[in-house]
Amino acid sequence: MAMGWFYLSVLALCSLGLMCILSTIYWISYWQGGFAWDGTILMFNWHPVLMVTGMVVFYSAASLVYRLPQSWVGPKLPWKFGHAAMHLLAFILTVLGLHAVFDFHSRRKIPNLYSLHSWLGITTVFLFACQWFLGFAVFLLPWASVRLRSLLKPIHVFFGASILSLAIASVISGINEKLFSSLRNGTNSYSRLPSEAVFANCSGMLVVVFGLLVLYILLASSWKRPELGMQAERQALLHGGE
Amino acid sequence: MAMGWFYLSVLALCSLGLMCILSTIYWISYWQGGFAWDGTILMFNWHPVLMVTGMVVFYSAASLVYRLPQSWVGPKLPWKFGHAAMHLLAFILTVLGLHAVFDFHSRRKIPNLYSLHSWLGITTVFLFACQWFLGFAVFLLPWASVRLRSLLKPIHVFFGASILSLAIASVISGINEKLFSSLRNGTNSYSRLPSEAVFANCSGMLVVVFGLLVLYILLASSWKRPELGMQAERQALLHGGE
Repeated sequence: MAMGWFYLSVLALCSLGLMCILSTIYWISYWQGGFAWDGTILMFNWHPVLMVTGMVVFYSAASLVYRLPQSWVGPKLPWKFGHAAMHLLAFILTVLGLHAVFDFHSRRKIPNLYSLHSWLGITTVFLFACQWFLGFAVFLLPWASVRLRSLLKPIHVFFGASILSLAIASVISGINEKLFSSLRNGTNSYSRLPSEAVFANCSGMLVVVFGLLVLYILLASSWKRPELGMQAERQALLHGGE
Repeated sequence: MAMGWFYLSVLALCSLGLMCILSTIYWISYWQGGFAWDGTILMFNWHPVLMVTGMVVFYSAASLVYRLPQSWVGPKLPWKFGHAAMHLLAFILTVLGLHAVFDFHSRRKIPNLYSLHSWLGITTVFLFACQWFLGFAVFLLPWASVRLRSLLKPIHVFFGASILSLAIASVISGINEKLFSSLRNGTNSYSRLPSEAVFANCSGMLVVVFGLLVLYILLASSWKRPELGMQAERQALLHGGE
Protein backbone atom coordinates (compact mmCIF):
# COMPACT_ATOMS: atom_id res chain seq x y z
CA MET A 1 0.00 0.00 0.00
CA ALA A 2 1.34 3.48 -0.89
CA MET A 3 2.59 5.43 2.15
CA GLY A 4 0.60 8.55 1.18
CA TRP A 5 -2.64 6.59 1.11
CA PHE A 6 -1.74 4.90 4.41
CA TYR A 7 -1.11 8.15 6.31
CA LEU A 8 -4.21 9.76 4.78
CA SER A 9 -6.28 6.81 6.05
CA VAL A 10 -4.72 7.03 9.53
CA LEU A 11 -5.48 10.77 9.62
CA ALA A 12 -9.10 10.21 8.49
CA LEU A 13 -9.56 7.45 11.08
CA CYS A 14 -8.09 9.52 13.94
CA SER A 15 -10.30 12.48 12.96
CA LEU A 16 -13.40 10.26 12.81
CA GLY A 17 -12.63 8.69 16.20
CA LEU A 18 -12.13 12.13 17.73
CA MET A 19 -15.40 13.33 16.17
CA CYS A 20 -17.23 10.34 17.73
CA ILE A 21 -16.00 11.33 21.20
CA LEU A 22 -16.51 15.09 20.74
CA SER A 23 -20.01 14.73 19.27
CA THR A 24 -21.08 12.52 22.23
CA ILE A 25 -19.64 15.08 24.68
CA TYR A 26 -21.37 17.93 22.82
CA TRP A 27 -24.75 16.09 22.78
CA ILE A 28 -24.60 15.47 26.53
CA SER A 29 -23.23 18.93 27.42
CA TYR A 30 -25.63 20.92 25.26
CA TRP A 31 -28.90 18.98 25.64
CA GLN A 32 -28.55 16.73 28.70
CA GLY A 33 -27.17 19.15 31.31
CA GLY A 34 -23.49 18.18 31.32
CA PHE A 35 -21.47 16.04 33.73
CA ALA A 36 -20.89 15.41 37.42
CA TRP A 37 -19.70 12.44 39.53
CA ASP A 38 -22.38 12.69 42.22
CA GLY A 39 -24.91 9.86 41.64
CA THR A 40 -27.40 12.15 39.85
CA ILE A 41 -28.46 12.01 36.20
CA LEU A 42 -25.34 14.11 35.52
CA MET A 43 -23.29 11.12 36.64
CA PHE A 44 -25.25 8.86 34.28
CA ASN A 45 -24.21 11.31 31.54
CA TRP A 46 -20.63 10.01 31.76
CA HIS A 47 -21.90 6.58 30.64
CA PRO A 48 -22.34 7.25 26.88
CA VAL A 49 -19.16 9.35 26.69
CA LEU A 50 -16.97 6.78 28.49
CA MET A 51 -18.44 3.84 26.55
CA VAL A 52 -17.91 5.51 23.16
CA THR A 53 -14.40 6.62 24.21
CA GLY A 54 -13.32 3.35 25.87
CA MET A 55 -15.25 0.56 24.19
CA VAL A 56 -15.20 1.99 20.64
CA VAL A 57 -12.46 4.60 19.98
CA PHE A 58 -9.64 3.55 22.38
CA TYR A 59 -10.48 -0.13 21.81
CA SER A 60 -10.14 0.45 18.05
CA ALA A 61 -6.86 2.32 18.42
CA ALA A 62 -5.48 -0.51 20.57
CA SER A 63 -6.66 -3.13 18.07
CA LEU A 64 -5.01 -1.40 15.13
CA VAL A 65 -1.49 -1.30 16.65
CA TYR A 66 -0.32 -4.21 14.45
CA ARG A 67 -1.53 -2.46 11.30
CA LEU A 68 1.24 0.15 11.67
CA PRO A 69 4.11 -0.84 9.35
CA GLN A 70 6.53 0.26 12.11
CA SER A 71 5.32 -2.77 14.12
CA TRP A 72 6.32 -5.20 11.35
CA VAL A 73 10.06 -4.78 11.82
CA GLY A 74 12.29 -5.26 14.86
CA PRO A 75 11.30 -6.90 18.14
CA LYS A 76 7.58 -7.59 18.57
CA LEU A 77 7.46 -7.48 22.38
CA PRO A 78 7.23 -3.66 22.80
CA TRP A 79 4.28 -3.63 20.37
CA LYS A 80 2.60 -6.44 22.30
CA PHE A 81 2.99 -4.42 25.50
CA GLY A 82 1.57 -1.36 23.75
CA HIS A 83 -1.38 -3.40 22.42
CA ALA A 84 -2.14 -4.82 25.89
CA ALA A 85 -1.61 -1.49 27.72
CA MET A 86 -3.87 0.45 25.33
CA HIS A 87 -6.59 -2.19 25.66
CA LEU A 88 -6.22 -2.00 29.44
CA LEU A 89 -6.76 1.77 29.27
CA ALA A 90 -9.84 1.18 27.08
CA PHE A 91 -11.08 -1.38 29.63
CA ILE A 92 -10.57 1.02 32.58
CA LEU A 93 -12.61 3.73 30.79
CA THR A 94 -15.29 1.11 30.07
CA VAL A 95 -15.47 0.04 33.73
CA LEU A 96 -15.75 3.72 34.77
CA GLY A 97 -18.59 4.06 32.23
CA LEU A 98 -20.36 1.07 33.80
CA HIS A 99 -19.78 2.45 37.30
CA ALA A 100 -21.42 5.74 36.26
CA VAL A 101 -24.66 4.01 35.26
CA PHE A 102 -24.72 1.44 38.11
CA ASP A 103 -24.14 4.11 40.76
CA PHE A 104 -26.85 6.35 39.28
CA HIS A 105 -29.30 3.41 39.15
CA SER A 106 -28.61 2.26 42.70
CA ARG A 107 -29.11 5.79 44.14
CA ARG A 108 -32.35 6.24 42.19
CA LYS A 109 -33.55 2.66 43.01
CA ILE A 110 -33.70 1.86 39.29
CA PRO A 111 -33.01 -1.85 38.60
CA ASN A 112 -29.79 -2.68 36.76
CA LEU A 113 -29.40 -4.86 33.68
CA TYR A 114 -32.99 -5.25 32.53
CA SER A 115 -32.93 -3.89 28.95
CA LEU A 116 -31.59 -5.78 25.94
CA HIS A 117 -29.10 -2.90 25.54
CA SER A 118 -27.71 -3.64 28.99
CA TRP A 119 -27.65 -7.43 28.42
CA LEU A 120 -25.69 -6.99 25.19
CA GLY A 121 -23.47 -4.29 26.71
CA ILE A 122 -22.49 -6.34 29.78
CA THR A 123 -21.88 -9.42 27.58
CA THR A 124 -19.58 -7.30 25.39
CA VAL A 125 -17.60 -6.05 28.41
CA PHE A 126 -17.39 -9.63 29.80
CA LEU A 127 -16.06 -10.89 26.44
CA PHE A 128 -13.59 -7.97 26.37
CA ALA A 129 -12.29 -8.95 29.85
CA CYS A 130 -11.94 -12.63 28.80
CA GLN A 131 -10.21 -11.61 25.58
CA TRP A 132 -7.75 -9.39 27.46
CA PHE A 133 -6.82 -11.98 30.09
CA LEU A 134 -6.55 -14.82 27.55
CA GLY A 135 -4.51 -12.59 25.22
CA PHE A 136 -2.23 -11.57 28.11
CA ALA A 137 -1.74 -15.18 29.24
CA VAL A 138 -1.13 -16.64 25.80
CA PHE A 139 0.53 -13.90 23.73
CA LEU A 140 2.38 -11.77 26.29
CA LEU A 141 3.53 -14.17 29.02
CA PRO A 142 6.37 -16.36 27.72
CA TRP A 143 4.96 -19.78 28.66
CA ALA A 144 2.55 -20.57 25.79
CA SER A 145 3.93 -22.70 22.96
CA VAL A 146 4.23 -21.37 19.41
CA ARG A 147 1.63 -23.98 18.37
CA LEU A 148 -0.90 -22.74 20.93
CA ARG A 149 -0.27 -19.13 19.88
CA SER A 150 -0.77 -19.83 16.18
CA LEU A 151 -3.90 -21.85 17.01
CA LEU A 152 -5.40 -19.05 19.10
CA LYS A 153 -4.33 -16.10 16.92
CA PRO A 154 -7.19 -16.25 14.36
CA ILE A 155 -9.69 -16.75 17.22
CA HIS A 156 -8.16 -13.75 19.05
CA VAL A 157 -8.45 -11.61 15.90
CA PHE A 158 -12.04 -12.79 15.24
CA PHE A 159 -13.17 -12.06 18.81
CA GLY A 160 -11.36 -8.72 18.69
CA ALA A 161 -13.47 -7.70 15.68
CA SER A 162 -16.63 -9.28 17.15
CA ILE A 163 -16.31 -7.39 20.44
CA LEU A 164 -16.02 -4.12 18.50
CA SER A 165 -19.15 -5.04 16.46
CA LEU A 166 -21.07 -5.85 19.65
CA ALA A 167 -19.86 -2.59 21.22
CA ILE A 168 -21.24 -0.66 18.24
CA ALA A 169 -24.59 -2.51 18.52
CA SER A 170 -24.63 -1.63 22.24
CA VAL A 171 -23.89 2.04 21.52
CA ILE A 172 -26.65 2.24 18.89
CA SER A 173 -29.26 0.61 21.15
CA GLY A 174 -28.06 2.79 24.05
CA ILE A 175 -28.38 6.12 22.20
CA ASN A 176 -31.78 4.98 20.85
CA GLU A 177 -32.93 4.09 24.39
CA LYS A 178 -31.65 7.36 25.87
CA LEU A 179 -33.45 9.45 23.22
CA PHE A 180 -36.72 7.52 23.69
CA SER A 181 -36.61 8.04 27.44
CA SER A 182 -35.57 11.71 27.42
CA LEU A 183 -37.51 13.06 24.40
CA ARG A 184 -41.08 12.36 25.50
CA ASN A 185 -42.80 15.75 25.60
CA GLY A 186 -45.33 16.42 22.83
CA THR A 187 -43.54 19.29 21.11
CA ASN A 188 -40.10 17.84 21.83
CA SER A 189 -40.85 14.15 21.29
CA TYR A 190 -38.35 11.91 19.49
CA SER A 191 -40.81 11.28 16.64
CA ARG A 192 -40.76 15.01 15.74
CA LEU A 193 -36.99 14.84 15.30
CA PRO A 194 -35.97 17.88 17.36
CA SER A 195 -32.41 19.12 16.86
CA GLU A 196 -31.14 16.95 19.74
CA ALA A 197 -32.52 13.82 18.06
CA VAL A 198 -30.94 14.69 14.70
CA PHE A 199 -27.59 15.44 16.36
CA ALA A 200 -27.54 12.29 18.53
CA ASN A 201 -28.72 10.08 15.62
CA CYS A 202 -25.87 11.51 13.50
CA SER A 203 -23.43 10.79 16.34
CA GLY A 204 -24.64 7.18 16.39
CA MET A 205 -24.23 6.86 12.62
CA LEU A 206 -20.74 8.36 12.93
CA VAL A 207 -19.83 5.59 15.40
CA VAL A 208 -21.10 3.05 12.84
CA VAL A 209 -19.00 4.55 10.01
CA PHE A 210 -15.93 4.68 12.27
CA GLY A 211 -16.49 1.06 13.39
CA LEU A 212 -16.86 -0.21 9.81
CA LEU A 213 -13.64 1.54 8.75
CA VAL A 214 -11.77 0.02 11.71
CA LEU A 215 -13.17 -3.44 10.93
CA TYR A 216 -12.13 -3.07 7.29
CA ILE A 217 -8.57 -2.18 8.26
CA LEU A 218 -8.49 -5.01 10.83
CA LEU A 219 -9.73 -7.65 8.39
CA ALA A 220 -8.48 -6.54 4.95
CA SER A 221 -5.33 -8.39 3.95
CA SER A 222 -3.69 -5.32 2.39
CA TRP A 223 -3.40 -3.78 5.87
CA LYS A 224 -1.97 -6.87 7.56
CA ARG A 225 1.65 -7.63 8.43
CA PRO A 226 3.12 -9.47 5.40
CA GLU A 227 3.21 -13.22 5.99
CA LEU A 228 6.93 -13.77 6.51
CA GLY A 229 6.35 -17.50 6.99
CA MET A 230 4.80 -17.80 3.54
CA GLN A 231 7.68 -15.87 1.98
CA ALA A 232 10.16 -18.14 3.71
CA GLU A 233 8.25 -21.20 2.51
CA ARG A 234 8.33 -19.94 -1.06
CA GLN A 235 12.04 -19.22 -0.75
CA ALA A 236 12.61 -22.75 0.54
CA LEU A 237 10.63 -24.22 -2.35
CA LEU A 238 12.50 -22.10 -4.88
CA HIS A 239 15.96 -22.84 -3.46
CA GLY A 240 15.22 -26.38 -2.20
CA GLY A 241 18.33 -28.54 -1.74
CA GLU A 242 20.76 -25.60 -1.73
CA MET B 1 -12.01 -29.82 8.35
CA ALA B 2 -13.48 -33.21 9.38
CA MET B 3 -16.81 -33.95 7.69
CA GLY B 4 -18.48 -34.96 10.98
CA TRP B 5 -17.56 -31.62 12.55
CA PHE B 6 -18.74 -29.80 9.42
CA TYR B 7 -22.21 -31.38 9.35
CA LEU B 8 -22.61 -30.96 13.12
CA SER B 9 -21.86 -27.24 12.70
CA VAL B 10 -24.34 -26.92 9.82
CA LEU B 11 -27.02 -28.67 11.91
CA ALA B 12 -26.31 -26.39 14.92
CA LEU B 13 -26.43 -23.30 12.71
CA CYS B 14 -29.72 -24.30 11.01
CA SER B 15 -31.27 -25.06 14.41
CA LEU B 16 -30.12 -21.72 15.81
CA GLY B 17 -31.47 -19.81 12.79
CA LEU B 18 -34.81 -21.59 13.09
CA MET B 19 -34.90 -20.81 16.81
CA CYS B 20 -34.31 -17.10 16.05
CA ILE B 21 -37.36 -17.05 13.75
CA LEU B 22 -39.59 -19.19 15.98
CA SER B 23 -38.77 -17.28 19.15
CA THR B 24 -39.61 -13.96 17.45
CA ILE B 25 -42.92 -15.43 16.20
CA TYR B 26 -43.68 -16.81 19.66
CA TRP B 27 -42.89 -13.46 21.37
CA ILE B 28 -45.21 -11.57 19.02
CA SER B 29 -47.97 -14.22 19.04
CA TYR B 30 -48.06 -14.77 22.78
CA TRP B 31 -47.50 -11.24 24.13
CA GLN B 32 -48.20 -8.79 21.30
CA GLY B 33 -51.54 -10.09 19.95
CA GLY B 34 -50.37 -11.94 16.83
CA PHE B 35 -50.44 -10.93 13.17
CA ALA B 36 -52.67 -9.33 10.52
CA TRP B 37 -52.07 -7.41 7.26
CA ASP B 38 -54.56 -4.63 7.92
CA GLY B 39 -52.63 -1.48 8.87
CA THR B 40 -53.17 -1.97 12.62
CA ILE B 41 -50.55 -2.74 15.27
CA LEU B 42 -51.00 -6.40 14.24
CA MET B 43 -49.55 -5.45 10.85
CA PHE B 44 -46.59 -3.78 12.57
CA ASN B 45 -46.08 -7.13 14.31
CA TRP B 46 -44.87 -8.63 11.01
CA HIS B 47 -41.95 -6.17 11.07
CA PRO B 48 -39.69 -7.88 13.66
CA VAL B 49 -40.51 -11.38 12.33
CA LEU B 50 -39.81 -10.48 8.68
CA MET B 51 -36.63 -8.54 9.50
CA VAL B 52 -35.18 -11.36 11.62
CA THR B 53 -36.19 -13.92 8.98
CA GLY B 54 -35.10 -11.94 5.90
CA MET B 55 -32.28 -9.66 7.01
CA VAL B 56 -30.62 -12.09 9.45
CA VAL B 57 -31.48 -15.78 8.91
CA PHE B 58 -32.15 -15.99 5.13
CA TYR B 59 -29.39 -13.43 4.46
CA SER B 60 -26.98 -15.62 6.46
CA ALA B 61 -28.03 -18.79 4.66
CA ALA B 62 -27.54 -17.07 1.29
CA SER B 63 -24.12 -15.73 2.36
CA LEU B 64 -22.89 -19.16 3.45
CA VAL B 65 -23.57 -20.90 0.11
CA TYR B 66 -19.86 -20.84 -0.81
CA ARG B 67 -18.89 -22.45 2.49
CA LEU B 68 -20.51 -25.75 1.38
CA PRO B 69 -17.73 -28.03 0.05
CA GLN B 70 -20.14 -29.13 -2.70
CA SER B 71 -19.78 -25.62 -4.17
CA TRP B 72 -16.00 -25.98 -4.45
CA VAL B 73 -16.07 -28.53 -7.28
CA GLY B 74 -17.69 -28.41 -10.73
CA PRO B 75 -19.12 -25.33 -12.44
CA LYS B 76 -19.51 -22.26 -10.22
CA LEU B 77 -22.38 -20.61 -12.11
CA PRO B 78 -25.28 -22.62 -10.54
CA TRP B 79 -23.95 -21.73 -7.08
CA LYS B 80 -23.72 -18.07 -8.07
CA PHE B 81 -27.36 -18.20 -9.18
CA GLY B 82 -28.31 -19.88 -5.90
CA HIS B 83 -26.39 -17.23 -3.90
CA ALA B 84 -28.10 -14.36 -5.80
CA ALA B 85 -31.58 -15.97 -5.72
CA MET B 86 -31.44 -16.68 -1.98
CA HIS B 87 -30.31 -13.11 -1.30
CA LEU B 88 -33.15 -11.85 -3.49
CA LEU B 89 -35.61 -13.87 -1.39
CA ALA B 90 -34.05 -12.40 1.78
CA PHE B 91 -34.39 -8.92 0.24
CA ILE B 92 -38.08 -9.46 -0.65
CA LEU B 93 -38.85 -10.54 2.95
CA THR B 94 -36.96 -7.45 4.16
CA VAL B 95 -38.96 -5.12 1.91
CA LEU B 96 -42.21 -6.74 3.15
CA GLY B 97 -40.97 -6.16 6.70
CA LEU B 98 -40.38 -2.47 5.89
CA HIS B 99 -43.78 -2.20 4.22
CA ALA B 100 -45.44 -3.58 7.38
CA VAL B 101 -44.01 -0.79 9.54
CA PHE B 102 -44.40 2.05 6.98
CA ASP B 103 -48.04 1.16 6.31
CA PHE B 104 -48.81 0.96 10.03
CA HIS B 105 -47.11 4.32 10.64
CA SER B 106 -48.87 6.09 7.75
CA ARG B 107 -52.33 4.88 8.87
CA ARG B 108 -51.65 5.94 12.47
CA LYS B 109 -50.05 9.25 11.38
CA ILE B 110 -46.81 8.26 13.12
CA PRO B 111 -43.73 9.78 11.40
CA ASN B 112 -41.38 7.36 9.65
CA LEU B 113 -37.62 7.12 10.08
CA TYR B 114 -37.02 9.25 13.14
CA SER B 115 -35.29 6.85 15.56
CA LEU B 116 -31.62 5.84 15.35
CA HIS B 117 -32.89 2.26 14.99
CA SER B 118 -34.75 3.24 11.81
CA TRP B 119 -31.80 5.28 10.45
CA LEU B 120 -29.46 2.33 10.91
CA GLY B 121 -32.05 -0.15 9.62
CA ILE B 122 -32.80 1.76 6.41
CA THR B 123 -29.06 2.31 5.81
CA THR B 124 -28.53 -1.45 6.19
CA VAL B 125 -31.30 -2.25 3.68
CA PHE B 126 -29.91 0.37 1.25
CA LEU B 127 -26.42 -1.16 1.51
CA PHE B 128 -27.98 -4.61 0.99
CA ALA B 129 -29.68 -3.39 -2.22
CA CYS B 130 -26.42 -1.83 -3.51
CA GLN B 131 -24.49 -4.99 -2.63
CA TRP B 132 -27.00 -7.18 -4.48
CA PHE B 133 -27.06 -5.08 -7.66
CA LEU B 134 -23.29 -4.62 -7.73
CA GLY B 135 -22.77 -8.34 -7.05
CA PHE B 136 -25.25 -9.24 -9.81
CA ALA B 137 -23.60 -6.88 -12.31
CA VAL B 138 -20.01 -7.86 -11.56
CA PHE B 139 -20.09 -11.51 -10.51
CA LEU B 140 -23.13 -12.95 -12.30
CA LEU B 141 -23.36 -11.08 -15.61
CA PRO B 142 -20.57 -12.20 -17.95
CA TRP B 143 -19.16 -8.76 -18.86
CA ALA B 144 -16.89 -7.91 -15.93
CA SER B 145 -13.20 -8.72 -16.35
CA VAL B 146 -11.44 -11.25 -14.11
CA ARG B 147 -9.30 -8.38 -12.80
CA LEU B 148 -12.36 -6.35 -11.74
CA ARG B 149 -13.90 -9.43 -10.10
CA SER B 150 -10.79 -10.26 -8.10
CA LEU B 151 -10.49 -6.59 -7.11
CA LEU B 152 -14.11 -6.40 -5.91
CA LYS B 153 -14.34 -9.86 -4.28
CA PRO B 154 -12.74 -8.96 -0.89
CA ILE B 155 -14.85 -5.76 -0.78
CA HIS B 156 -17.99 -7.83 -1.60
CA VAL B 157 -17.14 -10.29 1.20
CA PHE B 158 -16.37 -7.47 3.67
CA PHE B 159 -19.62 -5.64 2.92
CA GLY B 160 -21.52 -8.94 3.10
CA ALA B 161 -20.28 -9.44 6.66
CA SER B 162 -20.75 -5.74 7.52
CA ILE B 163 -24.38 -5.70 6.37
CA LEU B 164 -25.10 -8.72 8.58
CA SER B 165 -23.42 -6.96 11.55
CA LEU B 166 -25.49 -3.82 10.93
CA ALA B 167 -28.65 -5.95 10.61
CA ILE B 168 -27.93 -7.48 14.02
CA ALA B 169 -27.38 -4.01 15.53
CA SER B 170 -30.70 -2.92 13.98
CA VAL B 171 -32.51 -5.98 15.39
CA ILE B 172 -31.09 -5.38 18.89
CA SER B 173 -32.04 -1.69 18.91
CA GLY B 174 -35.45 -2.58 17.43
CA ILE B 175 -36.34 -5.19 20.09
CA ASN B 176 -35.08 -2.81 22.79
CA GLU B 177 -37.24 0.02 21.38
CA LYS B 178 -40.34 -2.19 21.07
CA LEU B 179 -40.03 -3.41 24.68
CA PHE B 180 -39.53 0.13 26.00
CA SER B 181 -42.62 1.36 24.16
CA SER B 182 -44.92 -1.59 24.99
CA LEU B 183 -43.86 -2.44 28.58
CA ARG B 184 -44.69 0.86 30.30
CA ASN B 185 -47.25 -0.03 32.97
CA GLY B 186 -46.03 0.05 36.58
CA THR B 187 -46.41 -3.64 37.40
CA ASN B 188 -45.52 -4.75 33.89
CA SER B 189 -42.76 -2.23 33.14
CA TYR B 190 -39.59 -3.28 31.30
CA SER B 191 -37.45 -2.47 34.33
CA ARG B 192 -39.26 -5.15 36.37
CA LEU B 193 -38.28 -7.75 33.77
CA PRO B 194 -41.67 -9.42 33.24
CA SER B 195 -41.64 -12.76 31.40
CA GLU B 196 -42.12 -11.05 28.01
CA ALA B 197 -39.01 -8.92 28.58
CA VAL B 198 -36.90 -11.94 29.58
CA PHE B 199 -38.15 -13.92 26.58
CA ALA B 200 -37.63 -11.10 24.04
CA ASN B 201 -34.20 -10.21 25.50
CA CYS B 202 -33.21 -13.89 25.14
CA SER B 203 -34.47 -13.86 21.53
CA GLY B 204 -32.28 -10.82 20.83
CA MET B 205 -29.23 -12.49 22.40
CA LEU B 206 -29.98 -15.61 20.32
CA VAL B 207 -29.81 -13.47 17.16
CA VAL B 208 -26.42 -12.15 18.35
CA VAL B 209 -25.06 -15.69 18.95
CA PHE B 210 -26.37 -16.84 15.56
CA GLY B 211 -24.87 -13.79 13.82
CA LEU B 212 -21.45 -14.27 15.45
CA LEU B 213 -21.39 -17.95 14.39
CA VAL B 214 -22.28 -17.00 10.81
CA LEU B 215 -19.59 -14.27 10.78
CA TYR B 216 -17.03 -16.74 12.10
CA ILE B 217 -17.84 -19.24 9.36
CA LEU B 218 -17.81 -16.47 6.73
CA LEU B 219 -14.44 -15.08 7.80
CA ALA B 220 -12.49 -18.08 9.20
CA SER B 221 -10.07 -19.46 6.63
CA SER B 222 -10.74 -23.10 7.58
CA TRP B 223 -14.27 -22.73 6.17
CA LYS B 224 -13.23 -21.08 2.91
CA ARG B 225 -12.83 -22.64 -0.52
CA PRO B 226 -9.19 -23.83 -0.73
CA GLU B 227 -7.06 -21.37 -2.68
CA LEU B 228 -6.51 -23.33 -5.90
CA GLY B 229 -4.33 -20.51 -7.23
CA MET B 230 -1.92 -20.82 -4.31
CA GLN B 231 -1.73 -24.60 -4.71
CA ALA B 232 -1.00 -24.19 -8.43
CA GLU B 233 1.68 -21.60 -7.63
CA ARG B 234 3.35 -23.97 -5.18
CA GLN B 235 3.20 -26.78 -7.73
CA ALA B 236 4.79 -24.49 -10.33
CA LEU B 237 7.57 -23.58 -7.89
CA LEU B 238 8.14 -27.22 -6.96
CA HIS B 239 8.19 -28.48 -10.54
CA GLY B 240 9.66 -25.31 -12.12
CA GLY B 241 11.08 -25.89 -15.62
CA GLU B 242 9.42 -29.29 -16.11
